[in-house]
Amino acid sequence: MRSHEVQILGAGAIGSIFGYFLLMAGCDVVFVARGKRYRELKNGLKISGMVDYFEKVEVSDVPVKSWLTIVAVKSYDTEKAVRGIGNLTDVVMSIQNGIGNEDIIAKEAEKVIGATTSYAANLRDGVVFYAGEGETWIGNWKGCGEEVFEVAEILAKGGMNVRITENIAEMKWIKAAINAVINPLTAIAGVKNGELLRREFWNVAKFVCMECELLLRNMGIFINLEQKVKTIAKKTANNKSSMLQDLERGKKTEIDAITGKILEEAKKARIETKANEIMYWMVKALETSASKKSKRLKD
Amino acid sequence: MRSHEVQILGAGAIGSIFGYFLLMAGCDVVFVARGKRYRELKNGLKISGMVDYFEKVEVSDVPVKSWLTIVAVKSYDTEKAVRGIGNLTDVVMSIQNGIGNEDIIAKEAEKVIGATTSYAANLRDGVVFYAGEGETWIGNWKGCGEEVFEVAEILAKGGMNVRITENIAEMKWIKAAINAVINPLTAIAGVKNGELLRREFWNVAKFVCMECELLLRNMGIFINLEQKVKTIAKKTANNKSSMLQDLERGKKTEIDAITGKILEEAKKARIETKANEIMYWMVKALETSASKKSKRLKD
Repeated sequence: MRSHEVQILGAGAIGSIFGYFLLMAGCDVVFVARGKRYRELKNGLKISGMVDYFEKVEVSDVPVKSWLTIVAVKSYDTEKAVRGIGNLTDVVMSIQNGIGNEDIIAKEAEKVIGATTSYAANLRDGVVFYAGEGETWIGNWKGCGEEVFEVAEILAKGGMNVRITENIAEMKWIKAAINAVINPLTAIAGVKNGELLRREFWNVAKFVCMECELLLRNMGIFINLEQKVKTIAKKTANNKSSMLQDLERGKKTEIDAITGKILEEAKKARIETKANEIMYWMVKALETSASKKSKRLKD
Repeated sequence: MRSHEVQILGAGAIGSIFGYFLLMAGCDVVFVARGKRYRELKNGLKISGMVDYFEKVEVSDVPVKSWLTIVAVKSYDTEKAVRGIGNLTDVVMSIQNGIGNEDIIAKEAEKVIGATTSYAANLRDGVVFYAGEGETWIGNWKGCGEEVFEVAEILAKGGMNVRITENIAEMKWIKAAINAVINPLTAIAGVKNGELLRREFWNVAKFVCMECELLLRNMGIFINLEQKVKTIAKKTANNKSSMLQDLERGKKTEIDAITGKILEEAKKARIETKANEIMYWMVKALETSASKKSKRLKD
């Protein structure tokens, strides 16, 4: 088996967008997917929105040998997805939401890159809708040196906005805090991101924000979280958060890797988290109602 | 104009149930209603569920002269509904949800009775569905002596379970606290009352309970609110709360007379209310989303 340049584990919306930029950079890319998404990709990679793209691509239903492995599966699938990956690949980069994925990967791989991205995309009926250009931050998580620069260069060559940071963990916490405000609230209320800016929702968002900001401060991260969340809710006003999409489809959400991790850390730091706990349990409750509903629909 | 025995202002679900018991007691009852409900009642009062009843009744679209006026309009309509009522009636009794209605009525009438009821009913397509027998507590709010006993006797004669209390204000606060736990949460999540008993929802309900229980304690009311809410959620497991029904119909809810009053009192007592505030603002937010949705549907 020859070694591919890049494989993407989990070719959902955001994984596919990374795949697209890597293909644009001239890379040899393998999309690793299962079930319905595998069958869809067998017909080719379809992207609409910011670009129109439809080409045959290499697809596999198991991981292959490659220099770089990009992990883009849902957080709750990470452990299963990366089992044994160290034997197949040199570098693993997570572009996932939430906290904890890189640490899971680090148990399997020598060299790990962490990343956060604000590229916006969603997947429907086999077509990736590339909704908005963003920014991708990457940085060494474990054992990397030059590799971070190499990956940044490739992505940039493909057309992606990439920036390197020496503290990717901090960036991930900031992203998680932003997600902890936007995702559960939009998912519970069933509204698009922009609705959060209405006074009534914002009065709730503020409570969640305040708790997260205290936690970040306790970690030595001093940012105006309210301002950041406002900016992002405005920029993505017409988007449905991934958590809302998950609930609507009766799928499991990433609440454990987002709000769950916030609660864990806050507990250690003895920071009060009533608002985040309410968000957490409401999403958990709706997850089971939603999956029941979708099961009923399927039956 | 001759004087009727009783008029019911707001012949919705619960007002109609009271009307039914008064008719059963042989009273001369006038149902005061507007718009669609007025037209429905012109055809007769229809009840299904615990009883089957269909008879012509007296209907008016303005208040009439009567010995007793029962107020059963939504809390936010009380002020408008009882304007000038003191000139038409001897005694006014509120059977409404929430806090504050009796005080509004007391500005217009000399003799006011307060009441709380756990009779369960809802109104759909002109038919009152009488879902479950309950209990009605009544007591003097202002200026009443014998009248409380007279009203209790009439209702009991009609077949209603009635009890008299010397502290109706306390009963109203307990009812408001129970409503503050069950109503917003079921309305936000879009679930029936019984769902609250699932662990995930209950973890949220507990926060709301705890704050309300602290407030009640501060008022000198010592009850196990969690236990009370559990019992009621179990007994009414298949019911949709009135607040959920309101949101589903794109109507205004009674959140201001329930959670709103809890917040007001808690603020005076300096009791922390983050969970109740979150419930309050979520319902407020969904009220405007829901009414927008229903407006869109009507357009």
